Amino acid sequence: MPDPASNAPVVRVIPLGGIGEIGKNISVIECGDDLIVIDCGLTFPREEGMFGVDIVLPDFTYLAENASRIRALVLTHAHEDHIGAVPYLLRDIKIPQVLATRLTLALVKSKVDEFGLLNATEWVEVVPEDDPVQVGCFELEFVRVAHSVPDGVAVATHTPHGTIFHTGDLKLDPSPLDGVPTDLGHIAEIGSDGIALYFADSTQADVPGHTRSERTLAGPLRDLCSKAPGRIIATCFSSHIHRIQQFVDIAKEEGRSVCILGRSMTRNTNIAKNLGYLDADDVTFIKPNQIENLAPDKVMVLCTGSQGEPLAALSRFAAGTHHNMQPNPTDTVIFSSRTIPGNDNRVHRIQNGLAKVGTQIYSSDNAHVHVSGHGSSAELLTLLQLVRPTTFVPVHGEWRHMRAHAELGKLVGITEENIFLIENGTVVELRDGAARLTGEFVTVGAQLVDRTSNDEILDDVLEERQMASGDGVLVVVAHENSGTLELISRGFVTDDGDLLDDARTAAEDSLTGANGTRLDDAALSKLLQEAVEGIVHQRSRQSPLVVPVVLGD
Amino acid sequence: MPDPASNAPVVRVIPLGGIGEIGKNISVIECGDDLIVIDCGLTFPREEGMFGVDIVLPDFTYLAENASRIRALVLTHAHEDHIGAVPYLLRDIKIPQVLATRLTLALVKSKVDEFGLLNATEWVEVVPEDDPVQVGCFELEFVRVAHSVPDGVAVATHTPHGTIFHTGDLKLDPSPLDGVPTDLGHIAEIGSDGIALYFADSTQADVPGHTRSERTLAGPLRDLCSKAPGRIIATCFSSHIHRIQQFVDIAKEEGRSVCILGRSMTRNTNIAKNLGYLDADDVTFIKPNQIENLAPDKVMVLCTGSQGEPLAALSRFAAGTHHNMQPNPTDTVIFSSRTIPGNDNRVHRIQNGLAKVGTQIYSSDNAHVHVSGHGSSAELLTLLQLVRPTTFVPVHGEWRHMRAHAELGKLVGITEENIFLIENGTVVELRDGAARLTGEFVTVGAQLVDRTSNDEILDDVLEERQMASGDGVLVVVAHENSGTLELISRGFVTDDGDLLDDARTAAEDSLTGANGTRLDDAALSKLLQEAVEGIVHQRSRQSPLVVPVVLGD
Repeated sequence: MPDPASNAPVVRVIPLGGIGEIGKNISVIECGDDLIVIDCGLTFPREEGMFGVDIVLPDFTYLAENASRIRALVLTHAHEDHIGAVPYLLRDIKIPQVLATRLTLALVKSKVDEFGLLNATEWVEVVPEDDPVQVGCFELEFVRVAHSVPDGVAVATHTPHGTIFHTGDLKLDPSPLDGVPTDLGHIAEIGSDGIALYFADSTQADVPGHTRSERTLAGPLRDLCSKAPGRIIATCFSSHIHRIQQFVDIAKEEGRSVCILGRSMTRNTNIAKNLGYLDADDVTFIKPNQIENLAPDKVMVLCTGSQGEPLAALSRFAAGTHHNMQPNPTDTVIFSSRTIPGNDNRVHRIQNGLAKVGTQIYSSDNAHVHVSGHGSSAELLTLLQLVRPTTFVPVHGEWRHMRAHAELGKLVGITEENIFLIENGTVVELRDGAARLTGEFVTVGAQLVDRTSNDEILDDVLEERQMASGDGVLVVVAHENSGTLELISRGFVTDDGDLLDDARTAAEDSLTGANGTRLDDAALSKLLQEAVEGIVHQRSRQSPLVVPVVLGD
Repeated sequence: MPDPASNAPVVRVIPLGGIGEIGKNISVIECGDDLIVIDCGLTFPREEGMFGVDIVLPDFTYLAENASRIRALVLTHAHEDHIGAVPYLLRDIKIPQVLATRLTLALVKSKVDEFGLLNATEWVEVVPEDDPVQVGCFELEFVRVAHSVPDGVAVATHTPHGTIFHTGDLKLDPSPLDGVPTDLGHIAEIGSDGIALYFADSTQADVPGHTRSERTLAGPLRDLCSKAPGRIIATCFSSHIHRIQQFVDIAKEEGRSVCILGRSMTRNTNIAKNLGYLDADDVTFIKPNQIENLAPDKVMVLCTGSQGEPLAALSRFAAGTHHNMQPNPTDTVIFSSRTIPGNDNRVHRIQNGLAKVGTQIYSSDNAHVHVSGHGSSAELLTLLQLVRPTTFVPVHGEWRHMRAHAELGKLVGITEENIFLIENGTVVELRDGAARLTGEFVTVGAQLVDRTSNDEILDDVLEERQMASGDGVLVVVAHENSGTLELISRGFVTDDGDLLDDARTAAEDSLTGANGTRLDDAALSKLLQEAVEGIVHQRSRQSPLVVPVVLGD
């Protein structure tokens, strides 16, 4: 561990994303010329296909401004909200090294490979049991944690001014499927040496008690599957290798062949099998076009679509548009997942399609088919007691979760002034083991991305789409020489029969009023636009997108 | 009761809405020249402000085609999904009579009054304990039911071919707040006389056990309120008079003054007070601008916004933009409601705003502050046993609820062929006590309405808004004489720098190709549009709204 050295440059910790939200986790720790980035996740827009936005990335401005100081990107685990933005970061900014555990590294590399950027950085595998890793003036210590994807870690960053502990995402599952629980002993040890700053997962801070072990699902899932009269179709997150393992185990016991459906699930299971994270020896895997060849009670399908994604296998199956299988009343469909708030209607749409056919449906609503990967309040209390931080920063949650986590901090005796409830971009300064808020904020925000083109959708584009989406489009075309003026509407509705005529007149009047002065096209366009927007809003309270076109000749 | 008469015209029952969905309930019962409509509700679009659609009404086509036969509209209770479309129906179609209980009538009339249509029909108050009401050849018997709005009824329609029983919405609350439980004796009596067709509320058919009594909330709500250090701000559905009563009772006990915030809650509580459904004697009501004048622990605010409606009082309060009150850490906010699927994010946004301030928040997530108004499976089984219908039609639910309700029907011995799982528009024929599906369907659907103007948003408008929403707008302007051609984009994004230039060239080429033939403006517009749509989709996989403009002169 580096010796605390008061004359070392001050350490600054800056969360660039993941606070007040669940998604796009990314933080910076910097000291002098050394800067490391912890995680680089994305988030999904609240509503599907909202104005063409498919994914939301962190704003990389601060990293771009400090690119020369970046020593490494450290990844805690392979979930989209922690690694999803990595390809975009590597595309935009030079990152010398990416540090992660074996499976995390494999999963993130498969994503980066799609961007053709595998050579853009050095990939460094870390092993929690090994010695700490030196990066610049930082010493990084990795701690195994249990979560809903294997090979997750927490990160202790030893700095010249004290130790900073990031939990990553974790639960205290005492009997995880891989036999590798969260390493409480290691955490206690680091805690005993003193943790100056504790950044901790708040996702389930408002849930009482303990999160149940992944292993508690084994019996219930086996029971549901053993009484299934026909095919079993199960869906879960495609990175949830342990859940997939449980289904694969059942398939093996029951002599069912397994068909993996969906691109991400196929990719992840292949990687996990190859690296030994998924034990699928003696299991027969079949292709989608072989499903029909087997007796229904010899088939288990594992597929994507647990969040109701419209293009995923499960949605197409429920809608009857999947090439390789049609739903029928002897099918058993298991939603082994939690529905993320905002996706309920999409998931219900699938369930209704299946219910119409008479398929048997199991979900968290009527069976024990899912457990969370995040620790609940009792676990978070245990962690706080082991860590005994000088200063506590609840992160990875919406405000209702962070506030609940802060209350837990108070319960274990952390005083209110040592609990920082902060926002993205807040600079936390660490000096001689003491943290303080400097009042400084760096640039943070969101990049809205259309995944088809990977283009960013800027604010003005979003605003234009939003206007057109709600109230339609009015095009006003003025031909300067001939003096003709046309008003064309699309997606615009009004019961005021004269409104469009009057808007046209208003546009004409605006030009007439300007006749004395010689205006350029931009100025004329602005006049036309304001005239039409004004009268339409005044008379109908609507704000369509008004597109002025001035034709010269 | 009318004598069954085989030579009477056949009876037809047609649900026009409310099947496979929770919302826009409306059914028709007809026999010869007599037609009655049961309920006339609306629904809300799945996503807020979806393409400018605020509300969704049933398609009235079938009623318009049969307007001369309509004898009456019968309303079961005053919820939006049962009465919300009444003003629009009265605006469009002559309805001789509207039959409903006292409070239902008062609440629906207040809505119709806003449309200036109070004189469009005759308003007839019905009393469940009174004799049946004759409407054409039908005899209508009303049965008191407990629900989350007072004065609800089920309706037994005695026809020449047998009795049809509609439950409306109900639960079997044994101890409702008004002491008027669902009249099981009356239902049993009608059941004993024979019910040919049973249409029943499926909303909670997939929920095990019983729905808890409204009265079970009294203790928990009192406990939360009595320990509130400052103001209490509670939200619930504005028609939930019994819930409002519980809060008003607590306010009275604790010497708190009550401020009602929100238009619909103000209107409903006034009506309920005037008619004696809400006992608020000796309670001090204050205006919003008086909140600040009282000590915080002397104030209870009851407000709208339980579903996170952005313009409701609660949203503005949480965002800090309400004129009369700002949130603070001593406030206690109670969400005495269930969040309807699809509204979670909006409700969470409010809760996060409050959590940021440090307000104490109670909701169904962490306290017993709400019970449903719909009976769960055990109650639905009891009803099925009392009703013993010849034919059972689960309604008022999505398919997952209807399917669960059908399974309950089988449990009480109804054979599968006597359970009709049907869709909106399905004609159910009743003759000599026996129901059958004729295979006939009438026109059903949805009218999408912009509430600002009350205009309908037709399919083509919706499609245009949808295109512009996802991929923006391209305007292509051709001036025939000068041969100039302009392409203007709004809300369109591409990383293909040549795309817009190439699209312009493609548009020009399309006109050049057509030069030999003499085309009218419509044909030229079509050419331009197709040329631009084609190249843009081919190159970028996007489908912006393309607006062609051909200027003659």
